[in-house]
Amino acid sequence: MTAWNGNRRRIHIQEVGTRDGLQAECTFVPTEEKIALIDALSSLGLAKIEVTGFVSPKAIPVLADAEAVMKGIRRVPGTVYSALVPNVRGAERAIDCGADEVNLVMSATETHNLANLRMTREQSFGGLREVAALARGAGVRVNVSLSCAFGCPMEGEVEMATVLDWAERFHTQLGADSITLCDTTGMGYPTQVNTLVRAFRERWADAALTLHFHNTRGMGLANVLAAIEAGADRFDASLGGIGGCPYAPGATGNICTEDTVHALELMGYDTGVDLAGLVAVSRRLPALLGHDTPSQVAKAGQRLQLHPAPHDLEAIRARAEARI
Amino acid sequence: MTAWNGNRRRIHIQEVGTRDGLQAECTFVPTEEKIALIDALSSLGLAKIEVTGFVSPKAIPVLADAEAVMKGIRRVPGTVYSALVPNVRGAERAIDCGADEVNLVMSATETHNLANLRMTREQSFGGLREVAALARGAGVRVNVSLSCAFGCPMEGEVEMATVLDWAERFHTQLGADSITLCDTTGMGYPTQVNTLVRAFRERWADAALTLHFHNTRGMGLANVLAAIEAGADRFDASLGGIGGCPYAPGATGNICTEDTVHALELMGYDTGVDLAGLVAVSRRLPALLGHDTPSQVAKAGQRLQLHPAPHDLEAIRARAEARI
Repeated sequence: MTAWNGNRRRIHIQEVGTRDGLQAECTFVPTEEKIALIDALSSLGLAKIEVTGFVSPKAIPVLADAEAVMKGIRRVPGTVYSALVPNVRGAERAIDCGADEVNLVMSATETHNLANLRMTREQSFGGLREVAALARGAGVRVNVSLSCAFGCPMEGEVEMATVLDWAERFHTQLGADSITLCDTTGMGYPTQVNTLVRAFRERWADAALTLHFHNTRGMGLANVLAAIEAGADRFDASLGGIGGCPYAPGATGNICTEDTVHALELMGYDTGVDLAGLVAVSRRLPALLGHDTPSQVAKAGQRLQLHPAPHDLEAIRARAEARI
Repeated sequence: MTAWNGNRRRIHIQEVGTRDGLQAECTFVPTEEKIALIDALSSLGLAKIEVTGFVSPKAIPVLADAEAVMKGIRRVPGTVYSALVPNVRGAERAIDCGADEVNLVMSATETHNLANLRMTREQSFGGLREVAALARGAGVRVNVSLSCAFGCPMEGEVEMATVLDWAERFHTQLGADSITLCDTTGMGYPTQVNTLVRAFRERWADAALTLHFHNTRGMGLANVLAAIEAGADRFDASLGGIGGCPYAPGATGNICTEDTVHALELMGYDTGVDLAGLVAVSRRLPALLGHDTPSQVAKAGQRLQLHPAPHDLEAIRARAEARI
């Protein structure tokens, strides 16, 4: 099985722009605009939408309206509406608002976990255990995300064994319904991605696995294809490619949803996503955010959106032929 | 043989930023700056540098100093110094200046050829035949580039047979030493690239073949890997990813040299290129051109260029541990 030909294989595309993307923005996008954005995305065939994060409004003011957004959106059957939750309080809020899934996060490295979450990894894991139990009790799905699974911006390389050990604990001790391996700062490269996903699949052939790539160093799509060839079929992506990285000012963020769908559909994969609709929604982002986005397809158009020939083509041809 | 692991295979990287890139700029880069840029690139292990274009100074004023640049640069043995030439006059100028190679161009589609070169394809081919004979007589290598080999922005799909037929004529009737298949407006996608390069290799197993990709729709690196898996080992790329596309304002241009080398070296390929040197030269471009470039690695740094942990990491850890 080669990644170069999709052969109608199903690839699940999960939108994270409304949480991971907006969280990285300085501007507060008005609640009704967030809801309109998510409602527009809901009808386009995405497998999952990370709607918001039930985080501290003081820590992340741009997501302070999590309740209003989660309650205000229109739910389309077949789409999973997920929310990031950092702790029990967040999980309670998410469950109250009827989230289908809670997304729990910790880092693969001690330094990144301490720097980002102000806890040791074991403390984070202990917290996630409580959150997972609460969610499971409420009949809400649990996804656990491991940050820095492909490298840590402060510690450097992350051993594959470390990643697999945490995945093991997420499965057995947290009862995770699904796991996301996150390339938080765009350090993953195709050889590594292919090897790690292959190792994951050897251990858990059928476990739900998401790959979360950033395009920080331009390797996003190549990493997606390397992962597919190793047996992955779920990918996070962000509308417009929004969601920057604090360690790389000016660099691009998450892999771009429409660019990813555009490439995969051309290659014969079945994403189930309405690409034209996606591009139309993405083109609303610059006005909403006050800046350009990294999306390529939103700018260049789809591959076969052609341009007119010069209006005087026949005159050019006549002049050319007269020259001989 | 899979593309996902380089296994020290040699990949030849050919710099086109100084011609294809600068040609797309509005600003005239001063001659001494162009020479300094090329001299800086010359020591970095690139297989080939497309130094300039011996085109009409009226048509493309930013390359009006082609002679001065080609004569002014310092030649490093092992690097091929190439120049674009549109006609016999251009070839004479390039040969006079001691170019190692002339690069001839025509389009795979009639509409693009008429629109761009104001000639029918057969007229262009007839002209290239004269140019190729002249160059061969002068002992100068001949590369022939086929534009729109992966799609035409005006005609749409281009049949693989059309591309292979032109390649056949370039080999047999022009005596081309090497051929470049150009994805002029970023329409190529990995499945197509893999198929076309495979078909080319079935017909010409050992012919020198370059792939020239644009990252217009974010598929550049994936296309490089798809081509490698099909037997390609030579790629054009542009420092900083400069070289826009007139049909896609705001979209990125050629695949970026440093991003490509960064990814391929991580994957275990041997490009022979000094990546740190490349990034340093690329970081001079924004000041030279007056705008940011699409390069990701120039902004984000190499994968293992780490960031310091928070200065108070031990205090964070102590507070965290005291909490339990």
